[in-house]
Amino acid sequence: VNLLLVQPSEIGQDGIVRLRDARSAHLRMVLKAAPGQSVRLGILDGPRGIGTVRSIAADLVELECVFDADVPPRPAVDLLLALPRPKVMRRLWAQLAALGVGQIILTNAERVERHYFDTHILRADVYGPLLVEGLQQARDTRVPAVTIHRRFKILVEDHLDTLYPHGERLLAHPGSTAIMSVLAAAAARRALLAIGPEGGWNEHELRLLEERGFQRVGIGTRTLRTDTACIALLALVHAALHDAAR
Amino acid sequence: VNLLLVQPSEIGQDGIVRLRDARSAHLRMVLKAAPGQSVRLGILDGPRGIGTVRSIAADLVELECVFDADVPPRPAVDLLLALPRPKVMRRLWAQLAALGVGQIILTNAERVERHYFDTHILRADVYGPLLVEGLQQARDTRVPAVTIHRRFKILVEDHLDTLYPHGERLLAHPGSTAIMSVLAAAAARRALLAIGPEGGWNEHELRLLEERGFQRVGIGTRTLRTDTACIALLALVHAALHDAAR
Repeated sequence: VNLLLVQPSEIGQDGIVRLRDARSAHLRMVLKAAPGQSVRLGILDGPRGIGTVRSIAADLVELECVFDADVPPRPAVDLLLALPRPKVMRRLWAQLAALGVGQIILTNAERVERHYFDTHILRADVYGPLLVEGLQQARDTRVPAVTIHRRFKILVEDHLDTLYPHGERLLAHPGSTAIMSVLAAAAARRALLAIGPEGGWNEHELRLLEERGFQRVGIGTRTLRTDTACIALLALVHAALHDAAR
Repeated sequence: VNLLLVQPSEIGQDGIVRLRDARSAHLRMVLKAAPGQSVRLGILDGPRGIGTVRSIAADLVELECVFDADVPPRPAVDLLLALPRPKVMRRLWAQLAALGVGQIILTNAERVERHYFDTHILRADVYGPLLVEGLQQARDTRVPAVTIHRRFKILVEDHLDTLYPHGERLLAHPGSTAIMSVLAAAAARRALLAIGPEGGWNEHELRLLEERGFQRVGIGTRTLRTDTACIALLALVHAALHDAAR
């Protein structure tokens, strides 16, 4: 934990944060916090700040907090991902939040198994803490927005323009133009990256996406597992947007 | 499995590959191979090719093979990695091989726990199949060379110039210059990327590496877990070398 995240409701009227759960244990056992000591913390979807330990006991830690004036910006990359196997998706939540994504749009596709949608890993009470874990690792406060879509066509045709109204749209596809050149050419500020299922999008899905403005981008000829591809591609899009912004 | 890998010793005098293990089961059960059908295969550290199924039975598949004239080049990126926790290292082997690394140099550092070196995950008979799994995913044949070093100083001072005589040396460090600009400026063809332990390299280790020509590079201000950082940084170095080569 590099940044301890708290809910807005956990800040008292008196400006004191009172922690009673695993985070108080973490403060005592791992950070060996003592009264007077400062720790980095942040409010979920709010500013970062510094908390000074006021009192520390077995079941309660009180922190006096000062927060920054600004809220960190929402990450400039969004992800449209064909739902991978539950085991892979479980591993991905924290890593996606750590890399920085504004929203995660999970979708069905022909090569996605229907039963993937029945897993508990798509329940907000299960993935929420995993997203927070990733944010605490990366020192971010902005929780990715998550939507889950069981019908690809309806998502792309009816909802996508609302979910993602402005910015570049990219479609990861083996052997296509490098991400860097596409984003640099567009001087893009924001990108939505679509990553297909292990077996790839089918021709119909590719056409639908391209009709909606998605451009094919690739990272060479190596075929990667979904989780490896997500991390590699998100890193590249972030770097490319950063370059384009200068 | 996108490319079935075989040992050179598995190719008979008659040019026929005979498979009896999990790969023959994979051919029958997953690929539903039938006589006359072609499958992509490759020789470990050798060329890729096409195998045509000659006969298929419960315990033996025979393939008539034609191989390319060329062996794929060794990946242009090497990795110097402070040994992460065994659980993380287990997950990394296949992903590193899939992303493409010429060699993996594992090292101790102050913030690496000594007992990490005692894990079975550092035994060649354990990680070998995981590397092959990653190569089969990415359609590569070149097995990363692996060396394991329990003394950081001796590695850096006495062995590194032999293991990695030519090319750029990069050191991942939070908040440093972007990888892209460093590698583009150097028009680099080959890079060795050093990634420290979760707690970072200590000052002494940083100095030793910089004395040996390592330049600090970063990917922004987000702190990533070792496994996420490895994948993100390797993807960036590959992309940057590819850009520099044009």
